[in-house]
Amino acid sequence: MTKIRIGIVGYGNLGKGVESAVKQNSDIELIGIFTRRNPESLEVNSENVDVFNVDKAEAYIDKIDVMILCGGSANDLPIQGPKFASMYNTVDSYDNHKEIPNYYKKMNQIAEENDSLSAISIGWDPGLFSINRILASSILPQGQSYTFWGKGVSQGHSDAIRQIEGVKDAVQYTVPIKEIKDRVKEGKKPDKSPSKYHRRECYVVVEKETDKNKIRDKIKNMPNYFKDYETKVYFVDEEELQRNHSTLPHGGFVIRSGKTGIKGKQKQIYEFSLDLDSNPEFTASVLIAYSRAVYKLNNEGISGAKTVLDIPIGYLSPQSNNILREKYI
Amino acid sequence: MTKIRIGIVGYGNLGKGVESAVKQNSDIELIGIFTRRNPESLEVNSENVDVFNVDKAEAYIDKIDVMILCGGSANDLPIQGPKFASMYNTVDSYDNHKEIPNYYKKMNQIAEENDSLSAISIGWDPGLFSINRILASSILPQGQSYTFWGKGVSQGHSDAIRQIEGVKDAVQYTVPIKEIKDRVKEGKKPDKSPSKYHRRECYVVVEKETDKNKIRDKIKNMPNYFKDYETKVYFVDEEELQRNHSTLPHGGFVIRSGKTGIKGKQKQIYEFSLDLDSNPEFTASVLIAYSRAVYKLNNEGISGAKTVLDIPIGYLSPQSNNILREKYI
Repeated sequence: MTKIRIGIVGYGNLGKGVESAVKQNSDIELIGIFTRRNPESLEVNSENVDVFNVDKAEAYIDKIDVMILCGGSANDLPIQGPKFASMYNTVDSYDNHKEIPNYYKKMNQIAEENDSLSAISIGWDPGLFSINRILASSILPQGQSYTFWGKGVSQGHSDAIRQIEGVKDAVQYTVPIKEIKDRVKEGKKPDKSPSKYHRRECYVVVEKETDKNKIRDKIKNMPNYFKDYETKVYFVDEEELQRNHSTLPHGGFVIRSGKTGIKGKQKQIYEFSLDLDSNPEFTASVLIAYSRAVYKLNNEGISGAKTVLDIPIGYLSPQSNNILREKYI
Repeated sequence: MTKIRIGIVGYGNLGKGVESAVKQNSDIELIGIFTRRNPESLEVNSENVDVFNVDKAEAYIDKIDVMILCGGSANDLPIQGPKFASMYNTVDSYDNHKEIPNYYKKMNQIAEENDSLSAISIGWDPGLFSINRILASSILPQGQSYTFWGKGVSQGHSDAIRQIEGVKDAVQYTVPIKEIKDRVKEGKKPDKSPSKYHRRECYVVVEKETDKNKIRDKIKNMPNYFKDYETKVYFVDEEELQRNHSTLPHGGFVIRSGKTGIKGKQKQIYEFSLDLDSNPEFTASVLIAYSRAVYKLNNEGISGAKTVLDIPIGYLSPQSNNILREKYI
């Protein structure tokens, strides 16, 4: 069997997750890892995989079927996305929700010119959660949808705390408020602003002789990040932070409560949920499944930028549609 | 705006559900209801909708875009599916899992010859549950999937009880066993046969002077239906059956517990669940969303039989892909 040959661009948590996900998929093969760092400084977890500087990417056009872009949405993907789409099929997890329409437009134009296919904004949110928001609202037009995130680590919020003077390190968990979920399930319509149905838990290590009350106040009153939320601040030592808060769990759920029937009285609850020990490893697993779809669709002559909206589910599976109809439908 | 013109074939619980779902979708219009009964005997819930004998279906080829086939899988769809696919785009909820490959083959051939599109086996299982079984196993290749049904009324099992001599009426609920779900969530791998993770609750009305113990025994020992299950039998009077057990709730969930990472140690839980006051009304709502997709895809020149595997999610929505990318991704 010819394997699908992939490359990884960026070797952080997400890139490492893609590397380990490849090992679980026998139809996919990792050819190379591309980094902005000195290639010789990288210790990778795979044998027979070469590490290159990202500037050498052009040299692998005939050797790699799909490039999986594992950089961040703030600084990396706006540059790497268009650059790689001009040479390769790509998959990325671009998650700057407000900028997705512009990013799509740019990627679509470049990929069409290159006859390649770029799956953008793949992962669980955006990604699987988007699929469920659209499925649920299409099926139950009369209803209310909610997306809850957590319990999980928010890197952005953890970083924001680390910027405060006197803070050595911090981890922030976003936690959905269970009572609000119960109210949605009862068919009620709680306030839709996320600050009303999530709270924030912060584990903070401070420098010696720092005024903890001052730091707690600064966190709780930080606009956008914490001010409108119920926020709890716990001070811990470095050892405890490392021991209890060094993994990256996450998850959440999309829930829609709808009504059907001539009198609109029958309550119908639709729910999709994830409970993840490792956010980057799960996101990487979604990217790998979509890299398979990208490969198959591009082989059928399809090009341009695509989202989870455009890609039929059957393409994600290593099984043929015949087998899927027999065993999974 | 030109509305999508649909017809309903078969006016039972599902057909009535489609009729009421149309009223919630402003881009869809109900043109006619086709029945095997005397059309004048039908009391429908819509104004300006004509009722015809199913033999008159040919006459509406230019007036109906998609026919929604609401008959049963045992006797109706094997005949009505091919018949209507030779004239119309169709959507059906064919749910005889073992026969789906054969039904697909037949429908695909006829629809291709007719340049029409037939979405088969649409609903929640098969349908939304199939999507989630395939998504979950494609994303988490190392793991175990389980489908739990209920709590909900099984028509087949209720009918089986009604066949017993001395039984006047009966309603059977399939109930998932919560402890097994908890074990799956812990990453354990309980026995995969459905009889091990569902129990059956039967509410039975008997004729006067019937030996209840004998009936209880007959139910509990009925092969295939009850024998391997934990089965509870409750005797009630007609009035109570009517009062407490006359609606058709259902639901269930697909859950996959997978592992990721270089050492395969990170647990990832994927779950999709439905909690439905009305099984037929929800199924009808899914059929309506897919009728929209069938209409759009056939307008793009696509024909043949399709399942939930083949139809991109974006096609189910009344919104444009531009709007969906902006608001839902």
